[in-house]
Order: sequence, then C-alpha cells, then structure tokens
Amino acid sequence: MPKKVDHQERRTLIADALMRVAADQGLEAVSLRHVAAEAGVSAGMVQHYFRTKDEMMAFALSVVRERSQVRVTEAIARLGVDPSPRLLLRTMIAALLPLDEGTRDDGRVALAFLAYTAVRPAAAPSLREGTRQLTGFIAGILPDGHGDAAAAGLLALMEGLGVYLLGGQYTAEQALGALDAHLDLIFA
Amino acid sequence: MPKKVDHQERRTLIADALMRVAADQGLEAVSLRHVAAEAGVSAGMVQHYFRTKDEMMAFALSVVRERSQVRVTEAIARLGVDPSPRLLLRTMIAALLPLDEGTRDDGRVALAFLAYTAVRPAAAPSLREGTRQLTGFIAGILPDGHGDAAAAGLLALMEGLGVYLLGGQYTAEQALGALDAHLDLIFA
Repeated sequence: MPKKVDHQERRTLIADALMRVAADQGLEAVSLRHVAAEAGVSAGMVQHYFRTKDEMMAFALSVVRERSQVRVTEAIARLGVDPSPRLLLRTMIAALLPLDEGTRDDGRVALAFLAYTAVRPAAAPSLREGTRQLTGFIAGILPDGHGDAAAAGLLALMEGLGVYLLGGQYTAEQALGALDAHLDLIFA
Repeated sequence: MPKKVDHQERRTLIADALMRVAADQGLEAVSLRHVAAEAGVSAGMVQHYFRTKDEMMAFALSVVRERSQVRVTEAIARLGVDPSPRLLLRTMIAALLPLDEGTRDDGRVALAFLAYTAVRPAAAPSLREGTRQLTGFIAGILPDGHGDAAAAGLLALMEGLGVYLLGGQYTAEQALGALDAHLDLIFA
C-alpha cells in the first residue's frame, strides 16, 4: 500500500516555516533553501507547494492580511452595538497597527512586501484594490464635509505610523497620540 | 612607476552602480556581485570600498537623504522671504514625496531601507534621530495648540503617502489632495 501523504498538513508545515523566516530575517530572505531548512524538508518539497519567490511572498502577505482582518473584526465586535464613528475608526486603525510583538511580525512582512512591490508594481495588483476599498469604507464613516481626500489621508497616516512603529521611531504611546490628535481634528 | 589610481573616481563609479542596482532591482538585490557587474569591475574591487551589504545599504540611504535635503532647500528657497507656515510645510513635504521618476527611485531605496531596518533595528540608529529632529522642526512651525502629536501625525502622513505613491495606490494628485486636506484641518 502506498504511503498516505497529508498534503494539507505538509502545506501548513511549510507555510508556517515560511512565515517564521519572513518574521525573523525579513521577507527578502524568503527562499526555497531558507524555507526548506526551517521546515526540515527538501527544497524540492517546498517547490511542490510554492513554485517561485513571488508565490511565497504573495502567500505570506495573504496570511498577514487574513490575520489582520480577524483582529479588526474581533476588536470591533468588542465595541458592542452602535459605536460612535470616531470610536469605530480608532478601534479599526489601532487593530491594524503593529503595537505588540505578534502584530509587529505581521507588520514586517507587510512592509517588506510594500518595498518589494515598489520595485515590481506588477507583483501586487490586489494591493491597489485593497487600498481603494479601505479608503471608500473610511470615507463612509467620516463626518459630512470630509471626503475621499480625508479618508486617503487617514489611511496614509495609519501606514506611516506602522512604518515608524516598526522602525522604532515612534513608541506605541506616540503613535496612538498622533492618531488621536488627527481624529480630534476630523471629529472636532 | 606604479600606476596611479584615482580612488575618488573609482568610489564614485562603484557608488553610482550601487544606486542604479538599488533603483532598478530593489535595495535587497544590492550585493557585491550585482554591484560589481553593474560597475564593470571585480567583486574584490567593490569590497575594497564597501565591505558589507549593510555598508552598501547605509551608503545608498545617505545619498538619498542628501539629495532630498537639497530638494527641500531648493524648493524652500524658491518661496522667497517669509512664506506662511502652511506654505512652508506644504513645500517641504511635497519636496520629500516621490512624485516624479527621479524622486521615485530615491523613494524606493528609502522604503527598502525601512523594511530592512524593521527586521534589524540595530542597522539604523540615525533613522530615529532624523525622525526626532524632523518632528521637532515641524512642531515649531505648527499653529499654537498643535504639539508634538500633531507633528508626529503629519510626518507619518507624509511617510504613508510616500509608500502609497510608490506602490501606485495613490496618484500624485490624490497624495497632494490628502496632504492639503490634512493641512486644511491643522490651519483651519
């Protein structure tokens, strides 16, 4: 009888190794060789599940995105019914910022992906669509008189706070202080 | 008589090659081998001027920083005497954003460096000092009642706009629109 292979289990094993390499050494260090060594399997086996570096990077980003969606959903659920627009936005953005070690790992992966796609824009058409949807969602929550430009600004502020949190330029307290100051202006 | 070597010229040749590799293929692609091939010299010769990848990356960032300082100084000089605080800030931030092809190349290098140091914070202590100085400078220009938190927010907004300009999520018009909307709130 041929040996039974649990593909789902193997894929998860390799995907977990991929995420650990990306978090520890940076997304640019993700390679067949590195991931194989981390997972304790052959490079050929990794290649069976992820054929190219682009595929591995896109997968890492999709994992990070799913996790952040879960965090946002859970944080908003904790607000109870009918939170104020300001509290809703503040909660959503805070849940997306790399404020603790777990979210920092994810943030590093996302930042490396942004740096990668800045050189190869074709690698991430979905990035643009995701930003467009998020801007539209935020614009719908903002008070009257604040349009797409204010939503685009708030999203950019969030992205910049994330970059400075990851680089250690801002503490969590400073980042949340800057976010609150900005929301004070919008919801004055 | 020994052959005379112009070290300054050679260093410039190699540094230029390094910047081309960083702009075309991304900072993570910068390596002795790549830079040597681009400059048309041996890997050993590159190593004579830049010993490690960290040294090459730090050099690339210092070039990008110097260029952006020159851009800011020139843009502010064009404003003439005694510009309004709002115009001063708007001009400074616009000069730092990757709005055209030349500044986009520089922006890609800066973004890759940020992604790199997010994984290795020790690689860039000067990054934190630079951000601190810039935040202090901006805080001094803002109207009364807006403190460090507003300055930190404005700087983060600029960084995020840069990221989204590089990734193609925002057009130049959208980025400047978001900046103006933000300045409208601060200088209301």
